[in-house]
Amino acid sequence: MNTSLDCLVCFLRQALDAARMISSDVMVQEQIMREVMAWTARMDLGAPPPVVGQRIHRRLRELTGVKDPYQAVKDQGNRMALALLPDLEASVAKARDPLDMALRLALAGNVIDMGVNSSVSPADLSAAVGQAMTASIQGPLEEFRKTAAEAHTILYLADNAGEIVFDRLLIAQLGPERMTVAVRGGPVINDATLADAEAAGLDQMVRVIDNGSDAPGTLLHDCSETFRRHFESADLIVAKGQGNFETLSREAHTLFFLFKVKCPVIASHVGFPVGTHVLTTPRTESRPTATQEKGGA
Amino acid sequence: MNTSLDCLVCFLRQALDAARMISSDVMVQEQIMREVMAWTARMDLGAPPPVVGQRIHRRLRELTGVKDPYQAVKDQGNRMALALLPDLEASVAKARDPLDMALRLALAGNVIDMGVNSSVSPADLSAAVGQAMTASIQGPLEEFRKTAAEAHTILYLADNAGEIVFDRLLIAQLGPERMTVAVRGGPVINDATLADAEAAGLDQMVRVIDNGSDAPGTLLHDCSETFRRHFESADLIVAKGQGNFETLSREAHTLFFLFKVKCPVIASHVGFPVGTHVLTTPRTESRPTATQEKGGA
Repeated sequence: MNTSLDCLVCFLRQALDAARMISSDVMVQEQIMREVMAWTARMDLGAPPPVVGQRIHRRLRELTGVKDPYQAVKDQGNRMALALLPDLEASVAKARDPLDMALRLALAGNVIDMGVNSSVSPADLSAAVGQAMTASIQGPLEEFRKTAAEAHTILYLADNAGEIVFDRLLIAQLGPERMTVAVRGGPVINDATLADAEAAGLDQMVRVIDNGSDAPGTLLHDCSETFRRHFESADLIVAKGQGNFETLSREAHTLFFLFKVKCPVIASHVGFPVGTHVLTTPRTESRPTATQEKGGA
Repeated sequence: MNTSLDCLVCFLRQALDAARMISSDVMVQEQIMREVMAWTARMDLGAPPPVVGQRIHRRLRELTGVKDPYQAVKDQGNRMALALLPDLEASVAKARDPLDMALRLALAGNVIDMGVNSSVSPADLSAAVGQAMTASIQGPLEEFRKTAAEAHTILYLADNAGEIVFDRLLIAQLGPERMTVAVRGGPVINDATLADAEAAGLDQMVRVIDNGSDAPGTLLHDCSETFRRHFESADLIVAKGQGNFETLSREAHTLFFLFKVKCPVIASHVGFPVGTHVLTTPRTESRPTATQEKGGA
């Protein structure tokens, strides 16, 4: 998707939040703000928002000299989620529809997003689980179920640390034996990397690769060739989180996005309010049919 | 006061809100956003926030070719407030402490601020009046009362259209005969100009001048010489609204600011939460006394 004018305001807020989280040096905070404003003043609004996110966080790592500023936050997210895992597994085990329950819980885990929430407590996480139990998922659930049942190979694009523990439930339901999970190729915000996949025990149950990119989304041109081969050949791609939606929403693939709507711009794109749990597919340009072209009903 | 890093985010949000209010042309909206980002990337954070506000709104008027884009909004604000005036005057007339009541109502009127609220309805305004009746004013009320009683000349710096109708009550209490009211020298947001002062009937009760500047605050170097003479010679200056506080908070004058706290940055400056009704004085550097210098108690 394109970057909207509202996203520009949000980039600055995110840059300031991130700078304050990573460094107490006001000169670093001021410098990153000035640089972000200068970039965004000239940015191509045809590019998806994670292009700026990638650049902000690269520059923050450079300015502070810290390779993975969110490491502690990610460790905490993984630990918090792992503590809940036995209960979550029990919920799936006793569910009448285990796939539906696993989808709900994978969506609950999407609350652990430092790009949007500056901190997530165990209470926030439990509240998100509670909400996921009652809030229905908006989207083509039956189509997803059918596609998943028929797929020989599934590529699962993970999103955040902590959230990937919740993803274990959905991965188990979809079948780890035919699946590859892809994490980010380098640290960016609290997005999951290979180290996080190990901390979450994901590497013990499924093949995990990294995508070769440090964008908080999936910018295909920035990803490794290995990743792109997986992407091209998968029968089904499951993509978690807004960042993956923002970067892949126009890809003509058998792709299902799974995320919690977190901002008004995405809300207007998907047609559901902020907070909605959404399962959705790419918006590829659909050619008008002959009837439509002639103005017929 | 200085511009904080949080203000930078707010400038962009305000620019986008204003652009959308003034023009439905997305090219105009995009252009103003790009320009504001380029300015703010290089701005002197030692300057007060209204410097950017002035520049944004000048450019918006230039891009749209509309001399006073908020004219309709200001007319509506004045009409809305004039409809309430008889009731407000009755409240002051029957109050045990008419000056306190007039101060409360002048503060209630400060809700009509298009820089912060994109629209204010008659219901919002009535709610603000109700709130002002119960919420106490934070600040040196007795010092203000005494200073006002002793002043031979008072300069009243008005803020917004509509709000200036509420100011009539306080002006009447303070004594119009020794007072000059100053409005902005040109249109900016919904700040009151001479035309608004006339619409509000202010010119019929007190001497009204304009300050010669189109900043949403009082940038003394940008004001006319006539205004500056009034400013220098007044025994007491009453300054309404955050914009006047932001631009004059370091002036060593007998100056009382009267405003509703509308953002976290100002809240931390004055030490009261957003929403508080504040009466406050300039923060001039106070020299440590000999006792303090020696570390005495």
